Amino acid sequence: MNFQYLSKIRQQNPLVHNITNLVSAHFTANGLLAIGASPFMSSTLDEMSQVPAIADALVINMGALSITQVEAMLVAGKAMNELGKPVVLDPVGAGATAYRQQIAKKLLSEIRFSAIRGNAGEVAFLAGVDWQAKGVDAGCGHADVAMLAKDCANRYGCVVAVSGAVDYVSDGDVVFTINNGTPMFPKITASGCLLAGVCGAFLAVANPSEALQAVVAAAGSYAVAGELVAARLEQTQLGQFYVGLMDCLGAIDDDTVAKFAKIDEYQGGLS
Amino acid sequence: MNFQYLSKIRQQNPLVHNITNLVSAHFTANGLLAIGASPFMSSTLDEMSQVPAIADALVINMGALSITQVEAMLVAGKAMNELGKPVVLDPVGAGATAYRQQIAKKLLSEIRFSAIRGNAGEVAFLAGVDWQAKGVDAGCGHADVAMLAKDCANRYGCVVAVSGAVDYVSDGDVVFTINNGTPMFPKITASGCLLAGVCGAFLAVANPSEALQAVVAAAGSYAVAGELVAARLEQTQLGQFYVGLMDCLGAIDDDTVAKFAKIDEYQGGLS
Amino acid sequence: MNFQYLSKIRQQNPLVHNITNLVSAHFTANGLLAIGASPFMSSTLDEMSQVPAIADALVINMGALSITQVEAMLVAGKAMNELGKPVVLDPVGAGATAYRQQIAKKLLSEIRFSAIRGNAGEVAFLAGVDWQAKGVDAGCGHADVAMLAKDCANRYGCVVAVSGAVDYVSDGDVVFTINNGTPMFPKITASGCLLAGVCGAFLAVANPSEALQAVVAAAGSYAVAGELVAARLEQTQLGQFYVGLMDCLGAIDDDTVAKFAKIDEYQGGLS
Repeated sequence: MNFQYLSKIRQQNPLVHNITNLVSAHFTANGLLAIGASPFMSSTLDEMSQVPAIADALVINMGALSITQVEAMLVAGKAMNELGKPVVLDPVGAGATAYRQQIAKKLLSEIRFSAIRGNAGEVAFLAGVDWQAKGVDAGCGHADVAMLAKDCANRYGCVVAVSGAVDYVSDGDVVFTINNGTPMFPKITASGCLLAGVCGAFLAVANPSEALQAVVAAAGSYAVAGELVAARLEQTQLGQFYVGLMDCLGAIDDDTVAKFAKIDEYQGGLS
Repeated sequence: MNFQYLSKIRQQNPLVHNITNLVSAHFTANGLLAIGASPFMSSTLDEMSQVPAIADALVINMGALSITQVEAMLVAGKAMNELGKPVVLDPVGAGATAYRQQIAKKLLSEIRFSAIRGNAGEVAFLAGVDWQAKGVDAGCGHADVAMLAKDCANRYGCVVAVSGAVDYVSDGDVVFTINNGTPMFPKITASGCLLAGVCGAFLAVANPSEALQAVVAAAGSYAVAGELVAARLEQTQLGQFYVGLMDCLGAIDDDTVAKFAKIDEYQGGLS
Repeated sequence: MNFQYLSKIRQQNPLVHNITNLVSAHFTANGLLAIGASPFMSSTLDEMSQVPAIADALVINMGALSITQVEAMLVAGKAMNELGKPVVLDPVGAGATAYRQQIAKKLLSEIRFSAIRGNAGEVAFLAGVDWQAKGVDAGCGHADVAMLAKDCANRYGCVVAVSGAVDYVSDGDVVFTINNGTPMFPKITASGCLLAGVCGAFLAVANPSEALQAVVAAAGSYAVAGELVAARLEQTQLGQFYVGLMDCLGAIDDDTVAKFAKIDEYQGGLS
């Protein structure tokens, strides 16, 4: 597949509004700038009804929550829905505490998301599947991850991307696998948060009917970038991985992604 | 011009109090440490009347706002005014939303600033000039940027620095241009926020009558640092630019700035 | 001494809950991931009573405070106390303002800490000793730092680690010195905050009776990592020090620490 989203992002410079946390804000803003988007990181409640007019996509990240921030998410999310603009959910640690479970449910019941991007533990929680998650990390479980993606997509009527050694992306109908990436990704904080931001940038320049393709391309481009950087490092060089990832996101183009991406439709016996 | 501010900062180690946002806090603190200042990043309302006694400068950054944080800005700003210590405003995204417009006006009406540091879109808003800003990015417009700097400086009775491909710094009377820098600056987040912090450090060691010169020196030193780092990188190596900028800010001295800075008085027909 | 804490952390992957500030959150999370721990950075009051059930250690950082955040610290700290799990205090800028002095006292009176990690100025304040601290930086004073560590440890009945050119760690009985490290540590922001997090990870895998040894090992491992990185850099290369520190924390093992650590029992005439 040869997507043209990266070149569109660099031409159109979409404004991606991120309601996010103190761990990922700086990293996510830098990653979005690197691919050519314009990040806007506010969660100030007083301007949440005003930002959607200028935003091209909204990314809601559950990493750090407060009553005010949840209210900000709801106001901005609903306004984006009314304007027909894409909204992405990153359900960080969704199952980790009763409070997060409740907020995840509230967000999903009041906002229509274009896409959800999480790790297997988070998506399993959203899909109602038993899973041993660990805080904000993926944990492990025995469910089929492709089925998780598909079930969760059907349940919420949106595209779902499950990050891991293999990424699974589904619209509830088909499932795509992305066989790129590196074990270094989960060893740097907020690498999933940034991918959710990247999904927002790709959706911002995509036709609404192409949401599945845009998220597959976002996850594929990001995974290829990480893979190319990791290929020239020791697995323990996490500082250099962080730096190299920013360099690579600044340089990567659609042709490079097309050359290295291993994206396939999943044929593994989905019911 | 050969300034001596960097050597003074390294000798005096001024405490620079920053009321700033979750995107720029870590980066700004590191940049201030690199040039020899001592950053203090609190926006805790309960201690805002206590910090000015130990601070040598205050930098108010509008990047992320909340009712409590705006109150903190007002308390700290007024206390610094009473003590006659320098206060810098970074009007991040000042024109982006009605809420930010209102807060920018409130801060400017209740606090006397020594300097304002923003991009052209932000300063145009403060100067009351029509401009197509884009979120927190500069956007573009047709006004003469030198005039913007001068008008804004006159309007608020302080030094104004407009960051861009060329920097313009004015006290409302003369305008200086700084022809250094790199297009990589706006591609890493919070590079403008850090410059506002650097202006605070320079003002902290300057005589109050030298505010124009101190801000010119701050913007010139920062632009030279960026230029020297970018000269040995590809334009897309944004991760390495970030790292190299910290290295360079740690090493740069007044002589290096004097050698490379292209600072001139603007002669372009200011009315 | 040859400790086995790093290998235990990489095997057990303890969940380290950090209630911390916007300056240190990203850096601390990355450093904890690098040594093999699983960071959880929430200070959301609504989930503070729920996180202790899944956390293996709690690290309370006073860097940025708010009424809600202090309440979160108290709820989480008391819950960890009830569960018998380790709690670490980083008293950032404890003596800098009257507000911080009050919060430090409140935390120390309501929570039982396993360890306190601070610079000399902060620990001097906690120990009730006069000291010229400077904001969040150590400042200087004439008290004997070994005595400071010992007195503070006795006063609060916990292990106390004082960071500096030489680290001092005491349980109120004996004092250990760590003659490793680099002057580059205090030149990057949040390097002390990350050490407090690392202490949390070491305590999480240690037997409760080994608290002194675990904190000595944590401070020793961290100091050795910094020393190894600094050895191949110029003192001004602060960006590369940051990157190299993450790489080194990702790679360092107990044998390397044992080889380079200069840890001794202090014999300097403690009364």
